Amino acid sequence: MARDTSSPSLVITPEELLSHWQGHRNVTRRVIEAFPEDKLFQFSIGAMRPFSVLAMEFIKMAVPTLRGVISGEWSSADEIAEPATRADLLRLWDETTQEINRLWPEIPPNRFQQIDKAFGQWEMPIYGLLFYVIDNEIHHRGQGYVYLRSLGIEPPPFYDRA
Amino acid sequence: MARDTSSPSLVITPEELLSHWQGHRNVTRRVIEAFPEDKLFQFSIGAMRPFSVLAMEFIKMAVPTLRGVISGEWSSADEIAEPATRADLLRLWDETTQEINRLWPEIPPNRFQQIDKAFGQWEMPIYGLLFYVIDNEIHHRGQGYVYLRSLGIEPPPFYDRA
Repeated sequence: MARDTSSPSLVITPEELLSHWQGHRNVTRRVIEAFPEDKLFQFSIGAMRPFSVLAMEFIKMAVPTLRGVISGEWSSADEIAEPATRADLLRLWDETTQEINRLWPEIPPNRFQQIDKAFGQWEMPIYGLLFYVIDNEIHHRGQGYVYLRSLGIEPPPFYDRA
Repeated sequence: MARDTSSPSLVITPEELLSHWQGHRNVTRRVIEAFPEDKLFQFSIGAMRPFSVLAMEFIKMAVPTLRGVISGEWSSADEIAEPATRADLLRLWDETTQEINRLWPEIPPNRFQQIDKAFGQWEMPIYGLLFYVIDNEIHHRGQGYVYLRSLGIEPPPFYDRA
């Protein structure tokens, strides 16, 4: 898709939004790596979920949302076996990264401003849905930063998205 | 500024990005309100900053960033007296809300895709800078959710931006 420079008030192109998302996903991947394996699956504060469960939430939201955005048909994630190790989780993470990159160009260009009821429940513009998926990851990843700090582990820098 | 519907790949308009930001700021305001006053200024986990300090960071970033976006001149926040009470902090929050709404329409329409070196340090497209300010708030607010949960306090729902 060629970059559209005709709009005088262009905020962000679809390609830039993909890069923004994947940049955040790079940070999240480093947060997964920063946890000692047992803490990744077990550590929690205030009865919140361990970071492995949050990471799986991100994985389970990403591709099903993108499929719905592209097709207008909303179905939950296929059953994914819960990973038992950090390596398994990172493998699922990387598969999702590739699938997002593969699917993204299939989003119809006029789709971002359409309103849809995602998964039969959340009625909003498609751009808002995509932002929700990204923001939810940032939000819960911030939770992971507190887990790491309270374990005495320096988290990866928030600003480095490479 | 009229909504531009000519672009076939329009992701988000400037007005929608403002609403997105202020929606997140509504949630952050409710997080400030959810803290007992002493905990707001003192509670911390893992030697991280209390939530009052994080909220002041959001306040100190918002309007100076917007001024730089509009003018291309980057100067830090005017000295703001640190608030001593939750009511003082909320008053600063609400003044910032109004100032953001007042300034936003002054962003030149072609500005979002320009690259600038914000505050002489961070070279990136203007849209990336604005996203950074929003994402930084989401990130650290997630930290505030852990503080609240560990204090036994139910945080405001993340999805309710009204």
